Amino acid sequence: MAALILHEYARSGNCYKIRLTAAHVGAALERREYDIMKGETRTPEYLAAVNANGRIPTLQVGERFLPESNAACFYLAEGSALIPADPFEQADMLRWMFWEQYNHEPNVATLRFWHGWIGEANFSDLQKTLHPVKREAGAAALKLMDDHLAARDFFVAGRFTLADIALYPYTAACEEGGFRLADYPHVQAWLARVEAQPGHVRAEE
Amino acid sequence: MAALILHEYARSGNCYKIRLTAAHVGAALERREYDIMKGETRTPEYLAAVNANGRIPTLQVGERFLPESNAACFYLAEGSALIPADPFEQADMLRWMFWEQYNHEPNVATLRFWHGWIGEANFSDLQKTLHPVKREAGAAALKLMDDHLAARDFFVAGRFTLADIALYPYTAACEEGGFRLADYPHVQAWLARVEAQPGHVRAEE
Repeated sequence: MAALILHEYARSGNCYKIRLTAAHVGAALERREYDIMKGETRTPEYLAAVNANGRIPTLQVGERFLPESNAACFYLAEGSALIPADPFEQADMLRWMFWEQYNHEPNVATLRFWHGWIGEANFSDLQKTLHPVKREAGAAALKLMDDHLAARDFFVAGRFTLADIALYPYTAACEEGGFRLADYPHVQAWLARVEAQPGHVRAEE
Repeated sequence: MAALILHEYARSGNCYKIRLTAAHVGAALERREYDIMKGETRTPEYLAAVNANGRIPTLQVGERFLPESNAACFYLAEGSALIPADPFEQADMLRWMFWEQYNHEPNVATLRFWHGWIGEANFSDLQKTLHPVKREAGAAALKLMDDHLAARDFFVAGRFTLADIALYPYTAACEEGGFRLADYPHVQAWLARVEAQPGHVRAEE
């Protein structure tokens, strides 16, 4: 396999997903840190060479660049037990990964960022307006997960897959955005199961 | 293959993606229409049986249900030429599909819906506040596509793949949301290439 370089901001849950996948499949990642608070992913050099979308993470594979956290996880996990071989189960795994990026991350992760990096006292008018909207949508996403996990140990195929890895980081950190894990007991039990997987690595503070 | 039923709202670009994929791979779809303007995807029956997330599309495969448009496209296209076999190219295809759901659809598709279904005169205060934000983000997404396509015929692997199918419907309809295709000449040329593919089917009005 070509050399792997993770262009990241270590505290981002989207970057943590990729490190977690790499740990589970035994892939070695070189890491390059960018300070998103200083605009280091919006420089002309970064936009031209790493990701025209100006975001972390991007996984570099030899001379090629792969943005989008869940696509990078998929690349690292190809051929491993983290991706079910059954066609429906593989698509169902992707279903949860698309759902994560559409319904979960823009709410649960964004509120974590707003509270932890910007601070309520510094919210813009737009952030003040959107806060209750994202809070309600984030709570709905966590509730949907809780309902799904009421009768299941993992999201798809009865076992630990990339769907669990994609959903783990921002769910585990949701209290930083003002959500209460105690409201979602099946989610709490699932978080513990993910953490008990051999090869699990913790988030970085 | 088990019987395939598409639970849809035909004018949704996310549903059109699935019909387009099915046409390209020759899969027969039974179709069930729901009026999203009348809340038909939020009934207790729909939430319990089809999609707990209360959205269309959902692809039913025998007795199983697969929400998320891009996951349904992936399922239909598995084993076909629409999904590159090369691991990096397959992940790169997914990269554009995740990008579509995160950066493109919430802006370009949402503005089409707001303008075409709600009407500017009926915008809520929140919609009025978000309109310029989504307009700027949508324009940035179309610009990123235009730049990417300046030197390429298709998004990934030098040929027509699911990435093109995922990005086609809402891009083709972007003028309904107030964007101007003439501002994105490489996108316009790519739309024509997608439409020239054997097996292409048009959107429904």
